[in-house]
Amino acid sequence: MAGGDGIGVGMVGHAFMGAVHSQAWRNVHRFFDVPLVPRLAVLGGRDPDRTKAAADRLGWAATETDWRRLVERDDVGLVDVCTPGDSHAEIAIAALAAGKHVLCEKPLANTVAEAEAMVEAAQRAARHGVRAMVAFNYRRVPALALARQLVEQGRLGDIRHVRAVYLQDWLSDPAAPMTWRLRRESAGSGALGDLGAHIVDAAQFVTGQTVTGVSALTETFVRQRPLAGSDQTDEVTVDDCALFLARFSGGAVGSFEATRYALGRKNAMRLEVNGSAGSLAFDFESMNELSFYDHADGADAGFRRILVTEPQHPYLGAWWPPGHLLGYEHTFTHEAADFLTAIGTGTDPHPGFAEGLRVQRVLHAVQTSAESGGNWQSTDAG
Amino acid sequence: MAGGDGIGVGMVGHAFMGAVHSQAWRNVHRFFDVPLVPRLAVLGGRDPDRTKAAADRLGWAATETDWRRLVERDDVGLVDVCTPGDSHAEIAIAALAAGKHVLCEKPLANTVAEAEAMVEAAQRAARHGVRAMVAFNYRRVPALALARQLVEQGRLGDIRHVRAVYLQDWLSDPAAPMTWRLRRESAGSGALGDLGAHIVDAAQFVTGQTVTGVSALTETFVRQRPLAGSDQTDEVTVDDCALFLARFSGGAVGSFEATRYALGRKNAMRLEVNGSAGSLAFDFESMNELSFYDHADGADAGFRRILVTEPQHPYLGAWWPPGHLLGYEHTFTHEAADFLTAIGTGTDPHPGFAEGLRVQRVLHAVQTSAESGGNWQSTDAG
Amino acid sequence: MAGGDGIGVGMVGHAFMGAVHSQAWRNVHRFFDVPLVPRLAVLGGRDPDRTKAAADRLGWAATETDWRRLVERDDVGLVDVCTPGDSHAEIAIAALAAGKHVLCEKPLANTVAEAEAMVEAAQRAARHGVRAMVAFNYRRVPALALARQLVEQGRLGDIRHVRAVYLQDWLSDPAAPMTWRLRRESAGSGALGDLGAHIVDAAQFVTGQTVTGVSALTETFVRQRPLAGSDQTDEVTVDDCALFLARFSGGAVGSFEATRYALGRKNAMRLEVNGSAGSLAFDFESMNELSFYDHADGADAGFRRILVTEPQHPYLGAWWPPGHLLGYEHTFTHEAADFLTAIGTGTDPHPGFAEGLRVQRVLHAVQTSAESGGNWQSTDAG
Amino acid sequence: MAGGDGIGVGMVGHAFMGAVHSQAWRNVHRFFDVPLVPRLAVLGGRDPDRTKAAADRLGWAATETDWRRLVERDDVGLVDVCTPGDSHAEIAIAALAAGKHVLCEKPLANTVAEAEAMVEAAQRAARHGVRAMVAFNYRRVPALALARQLVEQGRLGDIRHVRAVYLQDWLSDPAAPMTWRLRRESAGSGALGDLGAHIVDAAQFVTGQTVTGVSALTETFVRQRPLAGSDQTDEVTVDDCALFLARFSGGAVGSFEATRYALGRKNAMRLEVNGSAGSLAFDFESMNELSFYDHADGADAGFRRILVTEPQHPYLGAWWPPGHLLGYEHTFTHEAADFLTAIGTGTDPHPGFAEGLRVQRVLHAVQTSAESGGNWQSTDAG
Repeated sequence: MAGGDGIGVGMVGHAFMGAVHSQAWRNVHRFFDVPLVPRLAVLGGRDPDRTKAAADRLGWAATETDWRRLVERDDVGLVDVCTPGDSHAEIAIAALAAGKHVLCEKPLANTVAEAEAMVEAAQRAARHGVRAMVAFNYRRVPALALARQLVEQGRLGDIRHVRAVYLQDWLSDPAAPMTWRLRRESAGSGALGDLGAHIVDAAQFVTGQTVTGVSALTETFVRQRPLAGSDQTDEVTVDDCALFLARFSGGAVGSFEATRYALGRKNAMRLEVNGSAGSLAFDFESMNELSFYDHADGADAGFRRILVTEPQHPYLGAWWPPGHLLGYEHTFTHEAADFLTAIGTGTDPHPGFAEGLRVQRVLHAVQTSAESGGNWQSTDAG
Repeated sequence: MAGGDGIGVGMVGHAFMGAVHSQAWRNVHRFFDVPLVPRLAVLGGRDPDRTKAAADRLGWAATETDWRRLVERDDVGLVDVCTPGDSHAEIAIAALAAGKHVLCEKPLANTVAEAEAMVEAAQRAARHGVRAMVAFNYRRVPALALARQLVEQGRLGDIRHVRAVYLQDWLSDPAAPMTWRLRRESAGSGALGDLGAHIVDAAQFVTGQTVTGVSALTETFVRQRPLAGSDQTDEVTVDDCALFLARFSGGAVGSFEATRYALGRKNAMRLEVNGSAGSLAFDFESMNELSFYDHADGADAGFRRILVTEPQHPYLGAWWPPGHLLGYEHTFTHEAADFLTAIGTGTDPHPGFAEGLRVQRVLHAVQTSAESGGNWQSTDAG
Repeated sequence: MAGGDGIGVGMVGHAFMGAVHSQAWRNVHRFFDVPLVPRLAVLGGRDPDRTKAAADRLGWAATETDWRRLVERDDVGLVDVCTPGDSHAEIAIAALAAGKHVLCEKPLANTVAEAEAMVEAAQRAARHGVRAMVAFNYRRVPALALARQLVEQGRLGDIRHVRAVYLQDWLSDPAAPMTWRLRRESAGSGALGDLGAHIVDAAQFVTGQTVTGVSALTETFVRQRPLAGSDQTDEVTVDDCALFLARFSGGAVGSFEATRYALGRKNAMRLEVNGSAGSLAFDFESMNELSFYDHADGADAGFRRILVTEPQHPYLGAWWPPGHLLGYEHTFTHEAADFLTAIGTGTDPHPGFAEGLRVQRVLHAVQTSAESGGNWQSTDAG
Repeated sequence: MAGGDGIGVGMVGHAFMGAVHSQAWRNVHRFFDVPLVPRLAVLGGRDPDRTKAAADRLGWAATETDWRRLVERDDVGLVDVCTPGDSHAEIAIAALAAGKHVLCEKPLANTVAEAEAMVEAAQRAARHGVRAMVAFNYRRVPALALARQLVEQGRLGDIRHVRAVYLQDWLSDPAAPMTWRLRRESAGSGALGDLGAHIVDAAQFVTGQTVTGVSALTETFVRQRPLAGSDQTDEVTVDDCALFLARFSGGAVGSFEATRYALGRKNAMRLEVNGSAGSLAFDFESMNELSFYDHADGADAGFRRILVTEPQHPYLGAWWPPGHLLGYEHTFTHEAADFLTAIGTGTDPHPGFAEGLRVQRVLHAVQTSAESGGNWQSTDAG
């Protein structure tokens, strides 16, 4: 609400994630009773002209070209890290050290070592009431938040199966150009870190179990791609897809797949969970729906297509009447609301950096297993 | 974009429609290159305290409790009418007379006579470059805008069938309380004007044909409803549902149904069109999808589930990558963008008041037919 | 079972319906414990060579070219009428008079007068233990039989809405040739009698209510069609589509549509029913599924996709394990089982000829209303 | 057709598979122009009374309690092996040695060694014109046969991804009783051989590629199950589920899962294939549909729901008009038609025993990998 206290946000990065985070900061208090009203204080970016243009378009009051200055500014109380993964650790640690709350895009880091350092920094900061959260926005899809509730309530019984895929197709064409996302030094990994991180977090979140070990396979289908604005090509040094089998802490088994080559699937982040008392299915391409099978329904049982737009569903009380759908960007508004609430009420946000590290350990085990030709890899070995 | 000139908006009404219109005015220029940047200047409402609270929450700079003052204010260049239908004509006509551009919620009015007066006022105003648009936001669902394009391109051939329903269920429970929407004097009609108006406009928009005559049936299932905060009941004086058969100007036949008693259907605004070369199907509960059957696909033909989230699809270039869904509120953002563009470029917005009148004539024919026990009613007789 | 007594079947007609009925008579006792085992005794058809070829292919022991001889034969105990509608009355009445049980394809007749005569004949025959049934096979789709059970159990509460369409597209192409189905003298009507009859019966069956009045519209889109094997055309004298609104005996309202011009819809016999406690939806193109919304599910409610293949579902105990689908032809096997059981146990089969007449009266009211330009027509006026 | 020559069938086993094979042999020539008309000559089973009862019910002329006598009988030209996997090799090899054509249920055998012996026997028999086929009936689902055609025609381009699951739920309840399917000595394996065999064959069939290596995980969730008619329990010695990652000969990667614990999934044999030009998706619970994404459709592209019921689709010319669905049993009728045609025309049936062996090698590699904790296992190592 407009009546709350304010907090200045400094955001580093203004590409896709920067745009959608801006929309969240700009509107969150119009719908949620947050204890702190965000001010779009400073936008950080390397190129001064492009950063200024982005700030105008997205509604930021000022700009900085050096993120070190941004995290030190007095008008910034919260730093939002929307850069590629290779700079997450450095920026987040500096911001925390400067006493700023930090929201960091996923995956938390490009390596387990970086993620460990970030967790340590977050723990130090927490002693002074400074909060850190990692931006796994899919936890804030109302249908997945409802899925979590159903599992918590025991409606699924013992979890036996997890099936999670994240399918996109934008690299399907070999002529699609090179980007920072296809270089190991900037992105850490390919589909694995970009898409796989989401489904690992979502699976752990919904089931309440952690992945204890994996066996993996990765592939790079197209190894050379054209450089934009050039007649040269460059080498793709990340995975195009990652597939892995997993065991969970509570006895469930799972299969995971992340790819950018599933032609026709635009953003098919799908999760299926089968338990002894019920089952769930979700597909982000129909993000307002949750399929739920309740074995207690007996002979009339069938997967229920729950339109997750009722006022009693997670986050929905803030929005429109039943049947009036939400979109992708709303998950970020929910994330902003939850983070501001955690800061304002002095509680730990979720997922914190430790949860981001847990995902990172799984990604690392996947890469290790894939490099070994598929051998089983414990996630503790991270 | 932030760089355009500004225009002050004065909005009358701050309930559901007011909230969603506010979201559109607040954000439209962050995504669309509109020639005029809206300023949320004045919010109008009868109760001063509630209006002030709504203005704070929704982000309006000032308030007025008398809409007559609002439409005269110098800082208002555009009046947005979000009130119940019985005040549309009076407010819109006064605003146009004051030289303000007008966006008016649907249905245009409660009677054909009011709608005719509004069309006349709009025509007068148009001579001075003042624009008027009626807020049939469903035209701005990207999937329905794409449907219109496919029909225009001849991909459907000759249109033979239209099947349109708008199904909700919030009155299914006889204990749901009385509201202004259930009184003829405030709402004009029930499901017919609230929901039926949308599907009549959508069917005419997508097919490019007009409804020439109808045969109708209406029903009121629950005739007494409790008054909120009282142990008394009040009489429902509008239709709970309206069903009608129709003929179109181009030879197609159609069936329409609007109801608030379709248990389990939350916002199922569905449209099916069958032509000699192709067919379309749409359901607002899956609003990011359009089903398209292309007879030219031969033995491989099947309804294509087009995820309408590609950059080349209507309005989508302004938003997120493929597969990242839009929601209900985005249709209003598109509406705002189109109206601001029409104003800024001096062109006629669509649907104008004359198109709103055309829908009104159909609604009137439906009521006349239903009252006569189903006799055929030409829409020209309006 | 093979152990039951036998009954000789004489079937008149060997086109589409003849082939599917043969499959039912040939196999019914392999799956159902019927009290009488059918013998495929005599096949009737006008052309001796084509009838003989059909008998060989379909497995009939003998042939007759004159149906009058067929219905008199001693080795025939049951006459199965699979001819066009204009001969139903004559054949069925003669067979009943000869003491043969009669299964008659739908619609029962081409006119109400014929249907009335058939009902009278059936009533006379019933006094001697001779049974007559009309072949509305869609009642034997397990999903629709389950739908009926749910309504009977009160799971839907008070029925308010019926939405029934039967969509095909085989006439969509104006070059499709003339057939007996497009001539009023042989077929009685077009889409109305062929497809509309099914949805009227299904709606009455599932809801347990009868249609009391209608308002209708029919259209013939293509009025001249080529004669097969000729360069001439002939006039289409039946409706290409029929749309009607209806009121039901229990207070529900309904809309119906039958067409052969819904491009891309191959056999979309769809039925939706909304009640005060639950809702149903069915589409024959997914005939093994029933969608059921149970309001008692509360915040977790959603349309359940019930795969109607469990042993406790209607007819399913005779077939395969769960999830192993049935097809179109199985509805005829169920019909045969039910009729043989009625004969063997001396009970009235459903739907009997009186129920067929009830459908006929609705079809007649539809035609009368359509010819009057849509005026309301009571079905009692038949 | 009834006009062809005859061939006596001897079938061993009369449980689920025996019933569905009987339906195929009884009806195949009524729909397909097969060169040989099957006679249901002899049914084999161990218990004389139960076998006699089954023969009566299913329509077999004679019975044998010793399969050795059955395969030697002069009135038997074709032996159909419908027993548990541990007797496949013995029966099939004896039948082939006796000069009888053999149709053998899947999986071909319980071990690679048995399967190799069977391939050898089949090769010997082939020199004398004796044919052997393994009953992977899912190849005869019209939608999967169409899928194969699309891949063969290059409509998918280079295959990159295969996603195959076979999900059932009948063991989800720990109280479900012990059966031969849960003992390693009779069944060889659990979900792996029963369900996994189908998806391995289907994936290899549709893609035209073979699986070259796997990494696997199996689990037994419920290790003790009640013995029917006893208060004792017995040990489950097979897998309850099997998950594996795979590489294909043409460069594709795949993931597979077979389970009987996916609550709510009754027979969800699903296959997804992504190529560089198109994609496919199939689910046996909607077995009359194939989803096909054609990248050539450009901005209008979307997964097409092809209702595989058109006369030009595989096997469909023999059946009903478009939109009139087929069921599970029809896949066996198609299988019978194809095998009779191969015998009659003296050509090799598909899948032959060598193809069955190829599946067996994959199953073996899966078990070996799972036992080693997930290490990569080449299928050549079989």
